[in-house]
Amino acid sequence: METTATAIKIEKIKTSKISQVDFDNLAFGSVFTDHMLVCDYKNGAWQTPEIMPYQAISLEPSAKIFHYGQSIFEGMKAYKDDHGDAFLFRPSDNHRRLNISANRMCIPEIPKAYFMDGLKELINLDKDWIPQKDGSSLYIRPFIFASGKGFHASPADEYKFLICLAPSGAYFSGKVKVLIEETYSRSANGGVGFAKTGGNYAGQFFPTQLAVKEGYNQVIWTDDNTHENIEEAGAMNIFIRINDTLITAPTSDRILDGITRKSILEIAQAEGIRTEVRKITVPEVVEAAKNGSLKEMFGAGTAAVVSPIAAFGYRGTDYDLPELTDSYASRFKKIITDIQYNRSEDPFGWRQKV
Amino acid sequence: METTATAIKIEKIKTSKISQVDFDNLAFGSVFTDHMLVCDYKNGAWQTPEIMPYQAISLEPSAKIFHYGQSIFEGMKAYKDDHGDAFLFRPSDNHRRLNISANRMCIPEIPKAYFMDGLKELINLDKDWIPQKDGSSLYIRPFIFASGKGFHASPADEYKFLICLAPSGAYFSGKVKVLIEETYSRSANGGVGFAKTGGNYAGQFFPTQLAVKEGYNQVIWTDDNTHENIEEAGAMNIFIRINDTLITAPTSDRILDGITRKSILEIAQAEGIRTEVRKITVPEVVEAAKNGSLKEMFGAGTAAVVSPIAAFGYRGTDYDLPELTDSYASRFKKIITDIQYNRSEDPFGWRQKV
Ligand SMILES: Cc1ncc(COP(=O)(O)O)c(C=O)c1O
Ligand SMILES: Cc1ncc(COP(=O)(O)O)c(C=O)c1O
Repeated sequence: METTATAIKIEKIKTSKISQVDFDNLAFGSVFTDHMLVCDYKNGAWQTPEIMPYQAISLEPSAKIFHYGQSIFEGMKAYKDDHGDAFLFRPSDNHRRLNISANRMCIPEIPKAYFMDGLKELINLDKDWIPQKDGSSLYIRPFIFASGKGFHASPADEYKFLICLAPSGAYFSGKVKVLIEETYSRSANGGVGFAKTGGNYAGQFFPTQLAVKEGYNQVIWTDDNTHENIEEAGAMNIFIRINDTLITAPTSDRILDGITRKSILEIAQAEGIRTEVRKITVPEVVEAAKNGSLKEMFGAGTAAVVSPIAAFGYRGTDYDLPELTDSYASRFKKIITDIQYNRSEDPFGWRQKV
Repeated sequence: METTATAIKIEKIKTSKISQVDFDNLAFGSVFTDHMLVCDYKNGAWQTPEIMPYQAISLEPSAKIFHYGQSIFEGMKAYKDDHGDAFLFRPSDNHRRLNISANRMCIPEIPKAYFMDGLKELINLDKDWIPQKDGSSLYIRPFIFASGKGFHASPADEYKFLICLAPSGAYFSGKVKVLIEETYSRSANGGVGFAKTGGNYAGQFFPTQLAVKEGYNQVIWTDDNTHENIEEAGAMNIFIRINDTLITAPTSDRILDGITRKSILEIAQAEGIRTEVRKITVPEVVEAAKNGSLKEMFGAGTAAVVSPIAAFGYRGTDYDLPELTDSYASRFKKIITDIQYNRSEDPFGWRQKV
């Protein structure tokens, strides 16, 4: 860290809620820790960050978040090793991406020190909340939204930056079955698909619910123009293994530049796995499924980690993926989580002790 | 109205704020009336609507509005005639469109009675706030957002429906100069462009700010694929007059189905003005500007009413529109506002007394 945040104001909770939490049965992102970080942007500047008891926030009904969707967020995790030390995974990349999203959504950038110091201070305070059970972790949600007032459709003059923490279990339970979407779209050329902004998620709910009704867990988005190119899933980037080559779509202004995705590409290189970052079409994948060269598909993301896909649906047909004993997905998952939970060396320099 | 809402609970303000308001110098949507309507959706149903003093609302930091952008809104106006009677313009169409947006965004539909009865009750209570000055009106903002909790990217289980009122002056001050956008896009095929949802607006701020820096007021969106077809502006549908024919793009899943737009098409028909609802390309408009057949361009929307465009920019060149004495824009504006302010007959049946 280059700079230090202005001294963070801290108000501790009187009595912790932690004893009420069943750490053996955690859902994803539905229980919150004792504290949160709040930082207000007003009069053209971010004010002193404050850590305070997790509590409701009060907003004017005309706050622009309610009307014009000016919001961005990040998704990160904190992990605990056997000694009780806490770690983050590539947190600077989340900060950088938050500011990329900020620029596209006309939200003021958050200084790195505010983000990093605030994050670490908060996690230290609520360190006991980091689950130690395998597969569980402390999900971290930094977010910024427009709190400024008025019905004029223009950027707000006030914002709130918050960090909340949620001890969480797995994002997906069980095997993931995906539907390749050809009617609805997630993002436009020249749009906001690469930004982690609320509207990108709300827009996915309806098509995803249609897919869920047909027995799928997630939609695989294709480009809005030809619906031929595989882009990404709702909260994961997508990898496809044909024979022994690992393929993923290039990032663009329609696709989120996932941190898990780029980590996997680096690990693959270190492991001597051949990768191709290129357009991959649905017909190519269907053909590979038919001729047996399609070995794996998996999603990659902070929440879902590495999620093997069991089958994909396309134009009324379901294509099952083979069950491999030594899959790329399981190799990547082990390497990444071993780094995250401090169970292995970290040749990439990704792990950061809190 | 077919049904009546459950009796609305009403809590009146103790002392009105109205004397503090300068009705001669109203901005757009920045002053709010004494009351607002609030209705909660929980346990699978909309609860009893309440009218209460305009006040801040309290939300959990994990409320889904902050994270996943599940929000929709409408924009309407109430007008007052010389006798002090209040009127709405095609309010059922706003209710219908709100529910169209609701479906796309996985938000529960709001029953018509809740919307209409709540609206009328609220306006009656704050009737004194309807400005009588020409060009001013009471801007009405019905909106629904996800108040349900959790970081899982899926539809919320709780929502809030509110109606707020803002006595407002004109949306644009002065002549409108627009830039035809070829890099950024507003919406995708198969996306949410036809829904009045927050994210569609936040996504426009950045390209609009770039245009504003170059001296334009608004961006004219083109399709995200070819950038050849003229679609709409940030908060207005677009009409183009070539010789004596009035042209506007067909609505689609990328374009908001504007109530002002369809009113103008009906008025044009009644007035014997030739209209064409068809794709209109940028090259066609530029050609028409060059050969003198381009007579008018104007925007149409509730906030902006009918806004003549003085010039458009395209690939570094500005094309000025002629100044006509008897423009279509001024004719439509007069006919519409005469109906709205109860200054003329209403052969279309659009006006509704509150
Ligand atoms: C749309 C989308 N794509 C991909 C990802 C994966 O990104 P990351 O690996 O940085 O978590 C996420 C979630 O974070 C996402 O929301
Ligand atoms: C994107 C967009 N297009 C068009 C319009 C015009 O629609 P209406 O005439 O119903 O107000 C609006 C505003 O309401 C809008 O937000």
